[in-house]
Amino acid sequence: MLFQDHDRILFIGDSISDYDRKRPVGEGLFEGLGTSYVSDIACHFGCTYPDMMLHFINMGISGNQVCDLDKRWQTDVLDLKPDWVSVLIGINDVWRRFDSPTMANEYVPLEEYRQTYENLIVRTLPHVKGMILMSPYFMEPNRQDAMRAEMDKYGLAVRELAEKYSLPFVDLQAGWDELFRHMHPCNIAWDRIHPNRVGHTYIAKQFLKAVGYEW
Amino acid sequence: MLFQDHDRILFIGDSISDYDRKRPVGEGLFEGLGTSYVSDIACHFGCTYPDMMLHFINMGISGNQVCDLDKRWQTDVLDLKPDWVSVLIGINDVWRRFDSPTMANEYVPLEEYRQTYENLIVRTLPHVKGMILMSPYFMEPNRQDAMRAEMDKYGLAVRELAEKYSLPFVDLQAGWDELFRHMHPCNIAWDRIHPNRVGHTYIAKQFLKAVGYEW
Amino acid sequence: MLFQDHDRILFIGDSISDYDRKRPVGEGLFEGLGTSYVSDIACHFGCTYPDMMLHFINMGISGNQVCDLDKRWQTDVLDLKPDWVSVLIGINDVWRRFDSPTMANEYVPLEEYRQTYENLIVRTLPHVKGMILMSPYFMEPNRQDAMRAEMDKYGLAVRELAEKYSLPFVDLQAGWDELFRHMHPCNIAWDRIHPNRVGHTYIAKQFLKAVGYEW
Amino acid sequence: MLFQDHDRILFIGDSISDYDRKRPVGEGLFEGLGTSYVSDIACHFGCTYPDMMLHFINMGISGNQVCDLDKRWQTDVLDLKPDWVSVLIGINDVWRRFDSPTMANEYVPLEEYRQTYENLIVRTLPHVKGMILMSPYFMEPNRQDAMRAEMDKYGLAVRELAEKYSLPFVDLQAGWDELFRHMHPCNIAWDRIHPNRVGHTYIAKQFLKAVGYEW
Amino acid sequence: MLFQDHDRILFIGDSISDYDRKRPVGEGLFEGLGTSYVSDIACHFGCTYPDMMLHFINMGISGNQVCDLDKRWQTDVLDLKPDWVSVLIGINDVWRRFDSPTMANEYVPLEEYRQTYENLIVRTLPHVKGMILMSPYFMEPNRQDAMRAEMDKYGLAVRELAEKYSLPFVDLQAGWDELFRHMHPCNIAWDRIHPNRVGHTYIAKQFLKAVGYEW
Amino acid sequence: MLFQDHDRILFIGDSISDYDRKRPVGEGLFEGLGTSYVSDIACHFGCTYPDMMLHFINMGISGNQVCDLDKRWQTDVLDLKPDWVSVLIGINDVWRRFDSPTMANEYVPLEEYRQTYENLIVRTLPHVKGMILMSPYFMEPNRQDAMRAEMDKYGLAVRELAEKYSLPFVDLQAGWDELFRHMHPCNIAWDRIHPNRVGHTYIAKQFLKAVGYEW
Amino acid sequence: MLFQDHDRILFIGDSISDYDRKRPVGEGLFEGLGTSYVSDIACHFGCTYPDMMLHFINMGISGNQVCDLDKRWQTDVLDLKPDWVSVLIGINDVWRRFDSPTMANEYVPLEEYRQTYENLIVRTLPHVKGMILMSPYFMEPNRQDAMRAEMDKYGLAVRELAEKYSLPFVDLQAGWDELFRHMHPCNIAWDRIHPNRVGHTYIAKQFLKAVGYEW
Amino acid sequence: MLFQDHDRILFIGDSISDYDRKRPVGEGLFEGLGTSYVSDIACHFGCTYPDMMLHFINMGISGNQVCDLDKRWQTDVLDLKPDWVSVLIGINDVWRRFDSPTMANEYVPLEEYRQTYENLIVRTLPHVKGMILMSPYFMEPNRQDAMRAEMDKYGLAVRELAEKYSLPFVDLQAGWDELFRHMHPCNIAWDRIHPNRVGHTYIAKQFLKAVGYEW
Repeated sequence: MLFQDHDRILFIGDSISDYDRKRPVGEGLFEGLGTSYVSDIACHFGCTYPDMMLHFINMGISGNQVCDLDKRWQTDVLDLKPDWVSVLIGINDVWRRFDSPTMANEYVPLEEYRQTYENLIVRTLPHVKGMILMSPYFMEPNRQDAMRAEMDKYGLAVRELAEKYSLPFVDLQAGWDELFRHMHPCNIAWDRIHPNRVGHTYIAKQFLKAVGYEW
Repeated sequence: MLFQDHDRILFIGDSISDYDRKRPVGEGLFEGLGTSYVSDIACHFGCTYPDMMLHFINMGISGNQVCDLDKRWQTDVLDLKPDWVSVLIGINDVWRRFDSPTMANEYVPLEEYRQTYENLIVRTLPHVKGMILMSPYFMEPNRQDAMRAEMDKYGLAVRELAEKYSLPFVDLQAGWDELFRHMHPCNIAWDRIHPNRVGHTYIAKQFLKAVGYEW
Repeated sequence: MLFQDHDRILFIGDSISDYDRKRPVGEGLFEGLGTSYVSDIACHFGCTYPDMMLHFINMGISGNQVCDLDKRWQTDVLDLKPDWVSVLIGINDVWRRFDSPTMANEYVPLEEYRQTYENLIVRTLPHVKGMILMSPYFMEPNRQDAMRAEMDKYGLAVRELAEKYSLPFVDLQAGWDELFRHMHPCNIAWDRIHPNRVGHTYIAKQFLKAVGYEW
Repeated sequence: MLFQDHDRILFIGDSISDYDRKRPVGEGLFEGLGTSYVSDIACHFGCTYPDMMLHFINMGISGNQVCDLDKRWQTDVLDLKPDWVSVLIGINDVWRRFDSPTMANEYVPLEEYRQTYENLIVRTLPHVKGMILMSPYFMEPNRQDAMRAEMDKYGLAVRELAEKYSLPFVDLQAGWDELFRHMHPCNIAWDRIHPNRVGHTYIAKQFLKAVGYEW
Repeated sequence: MLFQDHDRILFIGDSISDYDRKRPVGEGLFEGLGTSYVSDIACHFGCTYPDMMLHFINMGISGNQVCDLDKRWQTDVLDLKPDWVSVLIGINDVWRRFDSPTMANEYVPLEEYRQTYENLIVRTLPHVKGMILMSPYFMEPNRQDAMRAEMDKYGLAVRELAEKYSLPFVDLQAGWDELFRHMHPCNIAWDRIHPNRVGHTYIAKQFLKAVGYEW
Repeated sequence: MLFQDHDRILFIGDSISDYDRKRPVGEGLFEGLGTSYVSDIACHFGCTYPDMMLHFINMGISGNQVCDLDKRWQTDVLDLKPDWVSVLIGINDVWRRFDSPTMANEYVPLEEYRQTYENLIVRTLPHVKGMILMSPYFMEPNRQDAMRAEMDKYGLAVRELAEKYSLPFVDLQAGWDELFRHMHPCNIAWDRIHPNRVGHTYIAKQFLKAVGYEW
Repeated sequence: MLFQDHDRILFIGDSISDYDRKRPVGEGLFEGLGTSYVSDIACHFGCTYPDMMLHFINMGISGNQVCDLDKRWQTDVLDLKPDWVSVLIGINDVWRRFDSPTMANEYVPLEEYRQTYENLIVRTLPHVKGMILMSPYFMEPNRQDAMRAEMDKYGLAVRELAEKYSLPFVDLQAGWDELFRHMHPCNIAWDRIHPNRVGHTYIAKQFLKAVGYEW
Repeated sequence: MLFQDHDRILFIGDSISDYDRKRPVGEGLFEGLGTSYVSDIACHFGCTYPDMMLHFINMGISGNQVCDLDKRWQTDVLDLKPDWVSVLIGINDVWRRFDSPTMANEYVPLEEYRQTYENLIVRTLPHVKGMILMSPYFMEPNRQDAMRAEMDKYGLAVRELAEKYSLPFVDLQAGWDELFRHMHPCNIAWDRIHPNRVGHTYIAKQFLKAVGYEW
């Protein structure tokens, strides 16, 4: 398995990670991790590998784009001295282009996304044991949909970065595509973005599989 | 124009109409009509044709399906003695099949929908000057989407009823299809169901056009 | 029509514009424009001319007088780089004189109003495609009423400024006078200032007509 | 003076009297009388004539019209065994005709108002020492205003009833007319109906004068 | 009468004056004066002498002692440029000695009270037309009660200051003594400090009499 | 000591006992006994005599007079099958006469108080091991005060009933008189009725002494 | 695996199951299942076996004992026509004996527990495909603790019932014993009863294993 | 007895002391001491020795560990010039190690605890008449429990410090051990840390005994 005893594993991202996590640091008593897939992952480790003493931290903030991560990376990631950093970012970078088309500055163009993301990786790798990258997604099975098509480009950028730096890549978009062969997306999220508890369980399972967790 | 001086025009439906209308009767002071397209329609008449003294009533209830309308039709429609009844129902009848697939009793099959709807029309026409039927819709441009395909069947049922009884038919689904040639559906509604203010304005415009309102 | 593709149109004013708009900037998702005539205008453009991609911003603040606009003009208007600026100010400048007669500093004398207003125009015109001026108003049909008479002087000042700088002028006071030939003012506003939804629709219609919108 | 030691004086009416009085009976500790003119009157008697031990009861209910008083007259007036009954009703009977013109059943026609009011007097006089009638009013100095003109008719009806039954009549409308020679109505009430504290003090003074209170 | 047209009359003190007045300055719309005797006084002038255009300001703060007034005198009194200043202070200066006897620093000794008070007078008189001093009080008819006896000393100090500087003196303690010949103090205030509406009316009457108000 | 193992001890009374006790029955987890002297008594027994397994129940209701106890005695006392009943009632019976002098029906005359109280004792004694009577009180050291003098009569009535039926009598009024030789009453209660935590501790100590509790 | 396509699986119990589930029936949209292990179980099936279309219902109510289940069994279990019923009850039956020792009627003796439980099984088995029994527990590793020892008897009773009727038995107490070899109980629950998210995940895992779920 | 007239006695600690005490300083009117054992102690002195005029201050803050006391010792203890300081700290220093085992920095190792504690004593003794030390505790009767065993070490450290500096030592852990011979810990605290009212009474009794209070 990827993790070792006493490792500190930090998740950074947007509302998909956030889900009411504690401020300023998402950890500790009273559901400090919030109720997203991050908590699900921590809970599985907590009761299956209790002796590993892994420590989980959730630093997601609703509405964040990659440029927001960039601004708070030092305080919210590096200063917390994680051994592993899991990143799930990019949904809002694309979404604003489609739900707020008249506000030109609200979305992040692909190249800016890619470069900012890569810069975060480069700043981080010397200080950690590794990073896990998760693809941004849109729970839209129709690949011709304009926003889905755009999101796929951002997801591809993440995949390429994962490959370039030999990092584990969790292809959440592929996961949804597989799941929606069996159900309509509105069974997981009316807005096709924010998963219900079934959806978070599903994300957690893909992450756990990627890091070598055994049930 | 369809309406005459002092006519009473009642809107019945689900959450699309409701939008926080007053209980038990959606009329009168303090935004009694709520903030949906119903209010938009009433406001246009109120300042363009102030002498007509049209009275508008909003009896939408969030979550309703056609069977819910059936149960409250006497008290919530007929007892209020409208001259005109506008109906927008069917979205929840279909939606529950897709967002709650394991709950078999939560959605309304097509035939039950059609018959219940027709029965409401037959009960009502002798008591009113007319009815206006609006198609249920799903803001999904992709007609191959399972829920969109199903919704189209329900919309067709309403169209056929409108034709059978020679009633004005407002094809909201066609309206969205036209609009989404110019924008992504998430610009109107993240969940592709509940319109923002732009969406309600758009519904109101189609209704106004259908009843012969002149700007 | 007055506006061109991608134009940014900013509304500045008092509570008539404000109506719960988002802070610090009234734009974007979740009814960022509030629920006044500003939202009505934006919604009409949004569904009738979706390809124009006009961007609307509401910067009204309840209780403001022209001197308050003056203090925040740089940050709240110029810094937001609008192409068009629509101004509706002056009601509170007059109202305080009549509802708070013992507080001498709370209202704005006519000459101070005129000069401050003109100064704002002069500061702004070099940076925008144009401005639209709306008259302050009091929904009092009786022109002998002291406050109405005073408000008419402020309205005249705005009309004269509009003429001097060749700007579109929306005479809201004249609009109310016309409407109240058909109804009592309390049908629009108990306090004869803050319009209900019918009243905002009416303001929006006059603005839309003034800028060449076609229904 | 009109009142005698230990008299029970009951005020009945609409929101002008109500102002947050205690339910079900407006009396006793913790501002049971609310904050309208009723409390002002009771306070003046309470500290000027403490030995008279007058007991005051406020049974106003916001929004009431004369027909609402009629329905609750037995329980809310007669059962409470007052020695004196002060009535202030009629404002909503007229107001609804002007602020809700499309809702024909919401206002009370003059003849129904007069007859219902007289019936209440006839039911009550055998059981009490006397009644005090207060005119309904509209704080509109312009007698040509349609609602003011209509309100004057209702006020005249009350005056005629007072004369017919030889009851003290407090002409609040005349009081406002006198006061507004010195100020604009919006200094007392933005909506020209609900007085601020100055307005309630003024009503109380007129009542106190009518019943022979000496300062 | 003491006051002249357009005079500004400022009340300063503790919770007896405060009663929910507006912050930072207790004046203006929406019951800015709060609901204490200050509002009562202003209301009587407002409807009896509307042409005098007197402006009232309430700067009371709950819990204040004379040393608190001293700290905020410049900003809360002098900077507001009153023509008249009415002072009611001293209750908390004494009360804390009896309800918090173990907290030695919480009350103000008599000499400190007297000197601080006199200093405020000396600082103020050159800038105003006059000051009105009101005695602190304890609604305890029994003069042998320890707190009443102590309060009487503070009241005497105020009386002596009023005489020394020839200022109107409102002897509230004497007023309560007179009133409680007719009723028990708990009819005005359970805690013998904070008057109900009857009590505030009574304070207002004494003030009005002292300044020559004619009913 | 008065109590035996497993005894059920029920306290009945007014707000002095109530202090936020649980409804409908004041017992059990989460401070079911409220925060009055009742809880203090139970806590002392709970940690000093844990093996006695005494069960305490608080059935006080704020504002109650003896006639209110009479109405709910069957359900709130007898049906709960107590072994001991402690009664503290009478304060409101007297208080209303002084704080609400114009409301003649709000207080309970002495004879009615005595007879109702005696009737409760007679109904109860056959079903219990005993009753403890506590005197009503007014924290007013001055025995010439009208309300104190009246309260003393009610207290005497309770003392006489205790003697007649040989019941333990806790003379709370005498307790306060003793305590106020050392402090002012406002150190215990601003309103001279509702004790702070020191006052409740003091009541509890007197009760504990009366029932033979050893520290 | 135990379950078949389209099965309805109902969970009944106390607060451990409840965790804010929807009323009156814990199912459907908006986290209708609450946030306990019930939701965890449903989520795992929902994303791993989406085609099975299993329907889950949570009918836990905080504070319930077996006698409470008995009273609501018809409406809350049988009327909902489940195929499978999972029971987790008994904790409160024992707990009250230790946290409320003076309230003799608040806990359920072992024999009453056993008989009531068995009666529920007998009533149910003819109508369902099967039942799953979960042991009540106390997260106290020390078996000599009085409450743990008592709870073990109740757990044994459930185990015996499971064996008698050949039902799957989930030994939660044994699960905690195993887990607390690796951590202190306060890492799962401060009160040793209500699990945090890690604890619920752990319960869910044991249930899933018992019914043959494959990860 | 330990204390002398007019002494100031300050309690410092964690949530066990805090219980909603007033900020910034826990003293004075309106339950400034909160509802923990601190208030119980003050209340007993207040009504038993009213002439001593002891002043009590509660400076507990929930969640504090000894290092938190260290940071605020100057402002929260020394600056308040107490004559006596009572310390109850250490529970959170140990607890975090067991309820948050993965967060290594959240608990305080024994040596750091001892040294910090001793340092506080050394800084304080020159300025006060004396200190009272209370042992941290865990309401776990089983001494083999890992957290209890650890807590005993911290308690021993406090005992040794008390002996070294000849300070009164209140052995709360021994107190609980004695009490739990008669009841289960969950009768005092579900979480075995935060006492209910019985528990606080019990702590207060031990403190009172230690300082020579006579009932």
